Amino acid sequence: MHFEHNEQLIKDLKLAIENESLDKINALISELHPVDIADITTQLSLEEVKTFFDIVPGELISETIAELEEDERKGLLNSLTPEQIARKAIDYMESDDAADLIMELPKEKRTKVISLIDDVKKASNIVDLLNYPDDSAGGLMAKELFKVNINWDVMECVQELRKQAEQIETIHTVYVVDENNKLQGTLSLKSLILTPSSTKIEDVLNRDIISVKAHTQSSEVAQIMEKYDLVVLPVVDDLNRLKGRITIDDVVDVIKEEAERDYQMASGLSDTVESHDSIWHVTKARLPWLLMGMVGGVGSAHVLLGFDLSQHPEMVVFIPLIGAMGGNVGVQSSAIVVQGLANNSLKGSIAQRLVKETGIGLVNGLVCSAVLFAVNFLSDFSSRTCITVSIALLSVIIFAAILGTFIPLLLNKFKVNPALATGPFITTTNDIFGLLLYFYIGQMIIG
Amino acid sequence: MHFEHNEQLIKDLKLAIENESLDKINALISELHPVDIADITTQLSLEEVKTFFDIVPGELISETIAELEEDERKGLLNSLTPEQIARKAIDYMESDDAADLIMELPKEKRTKVISLIDDVKKASNIVDLLNYPDDSAGGLMAKELFKVNINWDVMECVQELRKQAEQIETIHTVYVVDENNKLQGTLSLKSLILTPSSTKIEDVLNRDIISVKAHTQSSEVAQIMEKYDLVVLPVVDDLNRLKGRITIDDVVDVIKEEAERDYQMASGLSDTVESHDSIWHVTKARLPWLLMGMVGGVGSAHVLLGFDLSQHPEMVVFIPLIGAMGGNVGVQSSAIVVQGLANNSLKGSIAQRLVKETGIGLVNGLVCSAVLFAVNFLSDFSSRTCITVSIALLSVIIFAAILGTFIPLLLNKFKVNPALATGPFITTTNDIFGLLLYFYIGQMIIG
Repeated sequence: MHFEHNEQLIKDLKLAIENESLDKINALISELHPVDIADITTQLSLEEVKTFFDIVPGELISETIAELEEDERKGLLNSLTPEQIARKAIDYMESDDAADLIMELPKEKRTKVISLIDDVKKASNIVDLLNYPDDSAGGLMAKELFKVNINWDVMECVQELRKQAEQIETIHTVYVVDENNKLQGTLSLKSLILTPSSTKIEDVLNRDIISVKAHTQSSEVAQIMEKYDLVVLPVVDDLNRLKGRITIDDVVDVIKEEAERDYQMASGLSDTVESHDSIWHVTKARLPWLLMGMVGGVGSAHVLLGFDLSQHPEMVVFIPLIGAMGGNVGVQSSAIVVQGLANNSLKGSIAQRLVKETGIGLVNGLVCSAVLFAVNFLSDFSSRTCITVSIALLSVIIFAAILGTFIPLLLNKFKVNPALATGPFITTTNDIFGLLLYFYIGQMIIG
Repeated sequence: MHFEHNEQLIKDLKLAIENESLDKINALISELHPVDIADITTQLSLEEVKTFFDIVPGELISETIAELEEDERKGLLNSLTPEQIARKAIDYMESDDAADLIMELPKEKRTKVISLIDDVKKASNIVDLLNYPDDSAGGLMAKELFKVNINWDVMECVQELRKQAEQIETIHTVYVVDENNKLQGTLSLKSLILTPSSTKIEDVLNRDIISVKAHTQSSEVAQIMEKYDLVVLPVVDDLNRLKGRITIDDVVDVIKEEAERDYQMASGLSDTVESHDSIWHVTKARLPWLLMGMVGGVGSAHVLLGFDLSQHPEMVVFIPLIGAMGGNVGVQSSAIVVQGLANNSLKGSIAQRLVKETGIGLVNGLVCSAVLFAVNFLSDFSSRTCITVSIALLSVIIFAAILGTFIPLLLNKFKVNPALATGPFITTTNDIFGLLLYFYIGQMIIG
């Protein structure tokens, strides 16, 4: 069963830590999953966590540290010595988690920690991984994998498996390589159990495999794993030599972050911001968009200066309505396009999409204008004002729907992230054009 | 390697289908993954797909159909006979995909198809699965799994595995149950290979397992699998009897849809809308929000009627700026809260969050107001107007930041989806309050 927060447990644990009683601590956490222990440590003071990690065994520490949120881990790592990190945390981690952890250390501390890792092979694996950019297949992969030679038979394969079993905790797939380490195929554990032991590997391996290059972008890796429902994906270099493997749990984070980034961008947040980031960090992500919005606002002001507003106070009061509706429609249209592009589910040409959006705009616009006309007419506005405002609303809604569809498609054509076009940008643009439309229509009808 | 669209291949395939040449078709698709075949079928006419599915073998058809997008599959299923669906498509599917497919059929066709399934056990599995709601663990799970009795030894276990191997394509984990089918633990295939064959299962099984109940919400299932990095998760009933298992690939879709739903809601789309949905369907999802936005717009108009606008045309021109900035800040603040709530990463009390947001609003507001003051002053607006507009902007930004944080938190407290509060709702609310603030400040300063 998964774990629910438990006040009493945390109290007891704090007491046990204070008394440095290993038995008590063990009794409290022995049944828990490392993810839950990580959860609990976030409720302890830094001092308590340090003592806690001094007492409990390395294996548990490493799993717990790997499960901590990045900023909580950073705080903790700062207060641990390089020896503690190398011998208690990293020693039990898989290479990808270890490399991620080392990248979070200050530069000076990194080499120190690496030099203290006792397992030479692990240290070299980690150094290898540090070369790949964070957002590439190489940055996502782990080096631990189980591979066999294509010239072996099943018996040799099982013997090798026994030999390597201690180092590799979970075996996802058995990779088959040739003498030059070039990837030839995969072997399922199931076939390893079911095939007679004298069978040659080359007769049972599955040659239809999907792999990625180490420099493949992580977003593409996520797309491939999602599309083909893969649990694990081998990573090769340009010569098709097996370099590592990526498991789906690391990619779930990428998939989720991608979906969230579009939302954030559409909300006017230029950087991935989390609620617990510092005021300064959050401001940096928000201010540029606000300033851009202000450029639009000042633009609108100068547009309005061009009209003699004092003559028609009745028209002025609908400025917010026209602006807001243009913004809302623009955001709706662009959100559909942006998600369609992200999911690769957009069908048809740009022209077809624009025709469809115009249709949707027309339907929505007619309903809204009719409702607005009725409401305004009953509120004793002059019939000229009622007509002007309703026609302007219809035009603005259609215009905003077209612009909201066109701009993200255009950006996408030029390889700019289309989500940039949504949110503040589309709202601002629609504000200015909407007001221009409104007052020109007003000039024509009211004079 | 994964597949890139290929115009020539599709042309050749269309020709081969026209000639009903199985050899040609096979030569063209034999190297392809079912996902890619599904991709290709979306480029064929319905007639061509029907002929194609008449010719190619059942196994390939079922995998291809399972990979099609829901609406494309619906079109295809409509034109297939119940016999074709039962014998060519479902016969090779895992139970979860088969149940999903049957749910997509019109009600009359469902029983007909089920009665035509030759494999009695499969039919009963499917009927079982149809009882669970779509958005529950039961709705996500498949019945195919490999289980052994806790009283067996490793040898008996491997024998059973050999026996069941034909029915179960991929073995994710070996589940261990007692004589009442109650879940006792799991066994990795690795331990099955490495343990001497006379070892008792109960001595090697892993008893620390995470499971969910069949009625657990699918969003909770996704959270658990994501949190604990699980590839497969057993589903039990209230008596802890093993009912099925959920694999991560089905849950990736849930995770993605959740993230996307928040974005859509924040963009004023009340329903999951895809770009290829009908105009009517899209309008239904969009119009309610627009009408709500209009209520706000009409509200703003009546607020403005309360002030004598003709006296101060200089103030009128900044109405769009004040409205837009309030909206932008509100959306920014609420997006962070909504994502924080969705990810369970919000820390601290409501009061603490409000204090922080006020701080962020103050910083952003001061910068924006200062810039605006400089720009307006240089544009020859009267200094009173400049001061009024800048002070109003600062107040509106702080106010919008607080409201954008508070409303989603409030909705969440009352178990309403906080994403409802973002987008059109927050923009509209901020519009009205922002204008009120603006003109009251104007009255105080300009008079």
